[in-house]
Amino acid sequence: GSYRTQPPPPPPPSRDQTTPMAAAASSLLAAAASSSSRAAISVRRPRAASAAAAAAASIPSSSRTSFTPLRASPARALRSRVVASAAPAMEPPAVSRVSTVVDVDLGDRSYPIYIGPGLLDEPDLLQRHVIGKRVLVVTNTTVAPLYLEKVTWALTHQNPNVSVESVILPDGEKYKDMDTLMKVFDKAVESRLDRRCTFVALGGGVIGDMCGFAAAAFLRGVNFIQIPTTLMAQVDSSVGGKTGINHPLGKNLIGAFYQPQCVLIDTETLNTLPDRELASGVAEVVKYGLIRDAPFFEWQEKNMAAILAREPSALTYAIKRSCENKAEVVAQDEKESGLRATLNLGHTFGHAIETGLGYGEWLHGEAVAAGTVMAADMSYRLGWIDESIKKRTFDILDQAKLPVTPPKGMTVEKFKNIMAVDKKVADGLLRLILLKGPLGGCVFTGEYDRKALDETLRAFCDN
Amino acid sequence: GSYRTQPPPPPPPSRDQTTPMAAAASSLLAAAASSSSRAAISVRRPRAASAAAAAAASIPSSSRTSFTPLRASPARALRSRVVASAAPAMEPPAVSRVSTVVDVDLGDRSYPIYIGPGLLDEPDLLQRHVIGKRVLVVTNTTVAPLYLEKVTWALTHQNPNVSVESVILPDGEKYKDMDTLMKVFDKAVESRLDRRCTFVALGGGVIGDMCGFAAAAFLRGVNFIQIPTTLMAQVDSSVGGKTGINHPLGKNLIGAFYQPQCVLIDTETLNTLPDRELASGVAEVVKYGLIRDAPFFEWQEKNMAAILAREPSALTYAIKRSCENKAEVVAQDEKESGLRATLNLGHTFGHAIETGLGYGEWLHGEAVAAGTVMAADMSYRLGWIDESIKKRTFDILDQAKLPVTPPKGMTVEKFKNIMAVDKKVADGLLRLILLKGPLGGCVFTGEYDRKALDETLRAFCDN
Repeated sequence: GSYRTQPPPPPPPSRDQTTPMAAAASSLLAAAASSSSRAAISVRRPRAASAAAAAAASIPSSSRTSFTPLRASPARALRSRVVASAAPAMEPPAVSRVSTVVDVDLGDRSYPIYIGPGLLDEPDLLQRHVIGKRVLVVTNTTVAPLYLEKVTWALTHQNPNVSVESVILPDGEKYKDMDTLMKVFDKAVESRLDRRCTFVALGGGVIGDMCGFAAAAFLRGVNFIQIPTTLMAQVDSSVGGKTGINHPLGKNLIGAFYQPQCVLIDTETLNTLPDRELASGVAEVVKYGLIRDAPFFEWQEKNMAAILAREPSALTYAIKRSCENKAEVVAQDEKESGLRATLNLGHTFGHAIETGLGYGEWLHGEAVAAGTVMAADMSYRLGWIDESIKKRTFDILDQAKLPVTPPKGMTVEKFKNIMAVDKKVADGLLRLILLKGPLGGCVFTGEYDRKALDETLRAFCDN
Repeated sequence: GSYRTQPPPPPPPSRDQTTPMAAAASSLLAAAASSSSRAAISVRRPRAASAAAAAAASIPSSSRTSFTPLRASPARALRSRVVASAAPAMEPPAVSRVSTVVDVDLGDRSYPIYIGPGLLDEPDLLQRHVIGKRVLVVTNTTVAPLYLEKVTWALTHQNPNVSVESVILPDGEKYKDMDTLMKVFDKAVESRLDRRCTFVALGGGVIGDMCGFAAAAFLRGVNFIQIPTTLMAQVDSSVGGKTGINHPLGKNLIGAFYQPQCVLIDTETLNTLPDRELASGVAEVVKYGLIRDAPFFEWQEKNMAAILAREPSALTYAIKRSCENKAEVVAQDEKESGLRATLNLGHTFGHAIETGLGYGEWLHGEAVAAGTVMAADMSYRLGWIDESIKKRTFDILDQAKLPVTPPKGMTVEKFKNIMAVDKKVADGLLRLILLKGPLGGCVFTGEYDRKALDETLRAFCDN
């Protein structure tokens, strides 16, 4: 069962967030009006508060307004039970804190994304998506000390039938390889997990990609839940079912399309995220505005300070709208035959930077930010956007303290050599995602004047 | 295009095969009458011979009646072209040698199984299922010297746009591991294959399983064709989409359900198969009769000598009817939630033998044969079948020169210990596939008298 132990989050506190919420509402209406006959996503409101929930709301808030992580304590468990016994007839239990659910519509592989502060304090949310009695949590050496105990509590609270194993991998993109993946299989086999088990990814994009691929391949497919703990994973890599590992000669070359049972985004996990990692995720948030959602971009322009200050309602909205945008694209093009490629705005230049520098020097979002500025510059040189869009792209990324030029050492030659082996090259033609038309428009094309690409590279590179 | 260079195979030559063909027809009718509303398979006849095909039939047979492998020669290519130019208006080209096609009905993942002698001499058959211009053939050190050149010819004949790479793995179950799988990815990455490429599995079950999983995971999924060259692979492992590798602690623990574009079974490849390997495949053929197809079992009783003598029409029929049975089961239960488990008749005892002996001592089908006799014995002790079915099971496997008792050293204790960790154990209960009722009936159940199991083990084991 699920029990309500905290009052609902306060309404948006600042004027900054009142305006954008209205903008968001109209954006949503516009999206609904313009969507194709296949409705890609829907936004569910939480269930109406029951009498029990209303009663529970009178319990004083404990740590809702501070960022101290909640711990599973006997006192806490007791209070939950008291609330539960005070309302024995409450059925189904109210899910108090889930202010936002985004549904990813993929037919019989559809699943919800829960977004909000404190969701890991709601055991029912996780437990309803666990299949079988055995859970394997896959996490890393950085995240385990912060959240593994809490996730284990959420999985097992008042649920003694479930047993939880965990495997803690080394942290970092360089461990996203077959040897590290085998450690997940080793643990699963040694624990004698059978087909009715659930893998839980607890961490950033690397953990989500590896755990997802392990879940896809273990016994030819077991259940899988994502708990992304970085903004990058929350707004991008945890949504859409791309899983996999790197090959020594290239990123993400081995993997599967595999969808989770649910994605649970507790925005409070961002409170332990370094500033640089937070900004890296912001680069992908900005991307959604630029490629398909002008009102969202305008909201970001007004609220970047609130995002960077980790205001809960600003983070929740930024994540929600990002997930909605990604879910819409993925629902229309799960296997990336066309539309999904537009999610790679800035990524071709960005991957060249990552490869040229050596992976790990710059964060992914940092490379994407510089790449996005370059894509906007090239789009402007082609005459496809006006100067104000180019400038606003630069300004918003600069405001997020993200790099807006490639690093020293990235020469024109280096860019060209690396981009020539990009996955999006077809018949020798490099296809790029470029901005076109009014704010929120883009194209994925190989038909552009080569001169503009040369000029952009020369303008941004040292030599 | 496809060109006819050989006359059709002769009609069934012996009386032995006239009777069973009639039996087969009635079996098919029975299957059709008893099938659910979802038609699982259909048997297609080849397209009606065109005028051009009829003309081509007058060209003298070259090596149809002998078992000498055909080689790609300039003369052969020339003749093909002559036939083609003699019938420029022929559209679509006739596929002369495909006497049998079994369709595996899996919605948008449906695919055909082509069965017959000399199919590798029909370039069009393979080429119509190749997607993209790049092909990677995955084979092993035993099969490559026999058929790699021929398959490469079939892929490229009059098709200069296609380039073929190959990777030759060491032969044997012990190489069905992650390290060997990485060699396939290495070759694919080094060859810079993109998403529009096709992997071809050329070999037995190990090659099919590994190549299939590599195709499922490379770039999250590329096209895949199976060319099984052992009877075991042709009648069982190539059909149904189970792919994967072994973990050091267990067989087939890492993999994917991944369906090919087509399965091409050239029965002439069985001419290079050792007798022991041929018999191993027969164990699975016998299984289909026992679990669901009495007329097929009766046909086998009359034709076992012809199968073991590798008579082309007997082999083709045995393979076709096996594939049909497997396709029907898989179409109803792709992910093995129940019905598909019945395909494991004899396999629980058999796996115990394989594990107890150490993999590689006995061939898979040899262990299954002894296991099938044990399952029949236990079914008889339970009173579920009459003695004649038990005896016929023993006799047909004995006639195929397969083992009908477990090897020395397999004690009752050893069987019990190994079977206790079988994948089909649920809540401590060992579920078995057992024969029940008239010939062709079976059950998958954990509800049986434990005493019968003990008696069977004691009757078959040394101590």
